[in-house]
Amino acid sequence: MNEIFASRREKLRQAMRARGLDALLISQAANRFYLSGFELHDPQFNESAGRLVVTADGRDWLATDARYLDAAERLWDHDRIFIYGGGAAKELHGLLRRCGSRVGIEAQGVSLAFARALATAGPGLFIEAADGLVERLRRIKEPVEVAALEKSFALNHKMLQWVEGQLVPGRSEAEISWGIEQFFRQNGASELAFANIVAVGKNAALPHAIPGEDAITENCPVLIDVGCRVAYYCSDQTRTFWVGDAPTDQFRRALDLTRQAQTAAIEGMRPGMPMRMAYALAHDVFARAGVAAAFTHGLGHGVGLETHEAPSLSPRSEGALEPGMVVTVEPGLYYPQWGGIRWEYTVIVEEDGVRIL
Amino acid sequence: MNEIFASRREKLRQAMRARGLDALLISQAANRFYLSGFELHDPQFNESAGRLVVTADGRDWLATDARYLDAAERLWDHDRIFIYGGGAAKELHGLLRRCGSRVGIEAQGVSLAFARALATAGPGLFIEAADGLVERLRRIKEPVEVAALEKSFALNHKMLQWVEGQLVPGRSEAEISWGIEQFFRQNGASELAFANIVAVGKNAALPHAIPGEDAITENCPVLIDVGCRVAYYCSDQTRTFWVGDAPTDQFRRALDLTRQAQTAAIEGMRPGMPMRMAYALAHDVFARAGVAAAFTHGLGHGVGLETHEAPSLSPRSEGALEPGMVVTVEPGLYYPQWGGIRWEYTVIVEEDGVRIL
Repeated sequence: MNEIFASRREKLRQAMRARGLDALLISQAANRFYLSGFELHDPQFNESAGRLVVTADGRDWLATDARYLDAAERLWDHDRIFIYGGGAAKELHGLLRRCGSRVGIEAQGVSLAFARALATAGPGLFIEAADGLVERLRRIKEPVEVAALEKSFALNHKMLQWVEGQLVPGRSEAEISWGIEQFFRQNGASELAFANIVAVGKNAALPHAIPGEDAITENCPVLIDVGCRVAYYCSDQTRTFWVGDAPTDQFRRALDLTRQAQTAAIEGMRPGMPMRMAYALAHDVFARAGVAAAFTHGLGHGVGLETHEAPSLSPRSEGALEPGMVVTVEPGLYYPQWGGIRWEYTVIVEEDGVRIL
Repeated sequence: MNEIFASRREKLRQAMRARGLDALLISQAANRFYLSGFELHDPQFNESAGRLVVTADGRDWLATDARYLDAAERLWDHDRIFIYGGGAAKELHGLLRRCGSRVGIEAQGVSLAFARALATAGPGLFIEAADGLVERLRRIKEPVEVAALEKSFALNHKMLQWVEGQLVPGRSEAEISWGIEQFFRQNGASELAFANIVAVGKNAALPHAIPGEDAITENCPVLIDVGCRVAYYCSDQTRTFWVGDAPTDQFRRALDLTRQAQTAAIEGMRPGMPMRMAYALAHDVFARAGVAAAFTHGLGHGVGLETHEAPSLSPRSEGALEPGMVVTVEPGLYYPQWGGIRWEYTVIVEEDGVRIL
């Protein structure tokens, strides 16, 4: 694996040279892992497990605190591990000065407090925001990443087959959710990719619903939006089920339109298509049926080391689909009076279209 | 509960007035929840579930995106909910201008990118870093918080009694860890408070060890550092066990010294004592025994809505213990050759000393 991380850093180095950067300080956890294999997670939002200094001259540093020394040494040349103490920003300033003068930082990946401490730690550095360089690489999945994603989605499909049998009247959202989590964990997932959504009845109208004590009744809709992490990679899928044998006409019509919108997008998407056009393919189906106002979010987002990553498929998206991108296709219709429908597949863009993972 | 959140905002308002702030933008998730009951977690490190604007005049705002409108309305006056779209910083700038001109933000709770977007969204605001005002309130636990912490620690103690029977040769760290997680979840915890540490043999020498495939052998040490979240509040405890009937002299001596250091701290700690003195109580035991070099971290940290919060008990800590503070007391000794010992209780500071939770 170490060669893969090194080759990613080489690609990043090319982008850094084009920007004239001597060094790039990587703080965002998924970017750090992508470039080094070191720690996919930080322990808390305000605690870093470590940072990477990618340099124009190729002598990259892994900077962390003493807790992580052993983990760092399993991955990184001992002489290029930098251990900082309590004053991380000040010490990193010193390290960065040894790497050059023009330094990029991730403005979206550091706190204002850290950026200030770094900028005021001393003279000699020209610090600039250099976001998106790694995220841009991460949009195109390499074969090793596709293999991991396929494993993660295979388990997600297996779970969704299993869960249908669990949807019986009387069982609460929270019970179903815990069952899903156990299924994932006992079949190879390291964790959930994100907090489960299991939404019964009207709760399905909330794009963001927390599983609670509401229970399945005879004849009600249940929306399930869940993902697991396998081999470091996330999966993300949604299904909307009807429990009982008498689905309402509203439900059937909304489900039918949602699936039509999804099919239109998946059949139409191909390399070179603008992102916003992918969104329009689904939106047009809803618009023709006069229900577009009930489609209240974008069509999809990238999936990889993070559940939500670049690119996004919305009416405001820039750029076009490229082979190797992995994106969700998740149209939905929401009606606060009775509930909502969402159906989500994740697809990989290939040379001649897209393939469902 | 809503009165509790309102009374916390009143206390914050006093601190804001002393600083001359017209408004304080709360972004940090635990602070947001502490002041409003709204969403303890953000969906991803780079995605906010919403922000709070606490104002000097008492007309506070809950700002979020449309996904969270329903959740917001369960807690907050409809007329004071502000829904932003894609350009959150720009829209928040407009909201803040309606609240005054001198505005505090949490420099540790916002990204550099967000702070820049807010500062450049338009004229009329004097924005300053105003960190720690909420964290300072959170250090002193209210009765309702103590009750939640007691529940969380009661489950943690119950689990630690149970887990001792699970430590049998052949079982891997990862298996034990998953068993612990299931026990917590099936007995009332909403989630783990932090990633479990279950470290066998030499792995126990790593203060940060990820449970892996290493298995328990006949006669080996096992370090378990785990916590759960119950009623929103975290617990955090560590034990070090010897599996088998022939603990080594090294193990016994290190365990004995660690427990002595912990007892010295717990018996000595009381209101008014400087934080660094609490650390010194434990450190002195190790120093007298000539093993202080193997005690490589601080003595403890606050526990509440977050596992790691203020105050911290280290040689560099400022301030003194106060009634209502909840802190861990977790001395440890680490020996890369064979493993390590840590023993962690969490205590609440009371009028005449501390009580173990």
